[in-house]
Amino acid sequence: MINYPIKRKIQTKTTNYANLGMTLESDIESSNAYYLNHEIAVIHKKPTPIQVVNVSYPARNKAKITEAYYKTPSTTDFNGIYNGKYIDFDAKETNSKTSMPLKNVHTHQIVHLRNVYKQGGIAFLIVHFKKYNEYFLLPANILFSYWDLQHDKEKGRKSIPYSAFKKSAHLIPFGYQPRLDYLKIVSLYLMGDSKTDY
Amino acid sequence: MINYPIKRKIQTKTTNYANLGMTLESDIESSNAYYLNHEIAVIHKKPTPIQVVNVSYPARNKAKITEAYYKTPSTTDFNGIYNGKYIDFDAKETNSKTSMPLKNVHTHQIVHLRNVYKQGGIAFLIVHFKKYNEYFLLPANILFSYWDLQHDKEKGRKSIPYSAFKKSAHLIPFGYQPRLDYLKIVSLYLMGDSKTDY
Repeated sequence: MINYPIKRKIQTKTTNYANLGMTLESDIESSNAYYLNHEIAVIHKKPTPIQVVNVSYPARNKAKITEAYYKTPSTTDFNGIYNGKYIDFDAKETNSKTSMPLKNVHTHQIVHLRNVYKQGGIAFLIVHFKKYNEYFLLPANILFSYWDLQHDKEKGRKSIPYSAFKKSAHLIPFGYQPRLDYLKIVSLYLMGDSKTDY
Repeated sequence: MINYPIKRKIQTKTTNYANLGMTLESDIESSNAYYLNHEIAVIHKKPTPIQVVNVSYPARNKAKITEAYYKTPSTTDFNGIYNGKYIDFDAKETNSKTSMPLKNVHTHQIVHLRNVYKQGGIAFLIVHFKKYNEYFLLPANILFSYWDLQHDKEKGRKSIPYSAFKKSAHLIPFGYQPRLDYLKIVSLYLMGDSKTDY
């Protein structure tokens, strides 16, 4: 009998953090789990609203939804509490190297973020520029100013330029635990240690 | 030809507010809509979490969910912001005249309310005693004390007595607009104008 060497798949180990993050949403959710487990904050993703039309009961106590449709949400995806403060945000990704298109943001999200902002909540977007693998925290009031100007013939534009992110948004540290430490930025922003004059 | 009188169902008009409220949940949701429209607060019900297994596309841009299941939520049903403060609560109904059974509250709700409470949020239950048509705001720390004692052989009990609601919870005014003015109670409670020493 001959012992043939067992074929083994060679796995290339990578320590590049960029490969750890499956999607922006799961990176945020794992960060939220970290914050929750360490009693830093209580922030959850809201479930996707679904209109249930038909339910069957193939087994006792087991409801099976057989007809349902996605509904338009009336809020952003994430909210919660951090150090007594109400936090509210949405997450956006773009493949563009030059700007984040405003069509990535829905009107109901702007309306909701404005309502939150008026009530004194911490409102923002987390924006991922995939080509640079950079994550920015964009405070809501900067978002509002671009949103409100977009139909202005002279100053308006349909996107927020990358340069504006570099200048007025905050780069979020990407690491192992938490994956996206956006509350570090919130904390700096809350304490008035921000780099712009908003 | 004979004209028979048309049979008409006699509808008894009622102005009793009790009949206006279909369910506790819809009363809270209509109150939240009132608060939102009047810029008093931004509080929403979270969608029920659903695990989608199969989706078909009978028409372009129209996703039809054909297999899905209800998931257990990890939070309470309602949260939001009021005057800069984070608000978090759940709603319960009971037919009992003497107490609210603790089995109406789920462990994950207690865990979540505790996390919120630790972060400095305003956490509570809205409890409807249907037999009296009374609505109470029960602050979370009173709920916690009954919850933690329930397995105690001497002092423990499986429910919170109605008398405890009368003594330590706050009766919520029921009216036309908003239907259930629970934020009035939150406001009094926040300002330290509470009737007990918690």
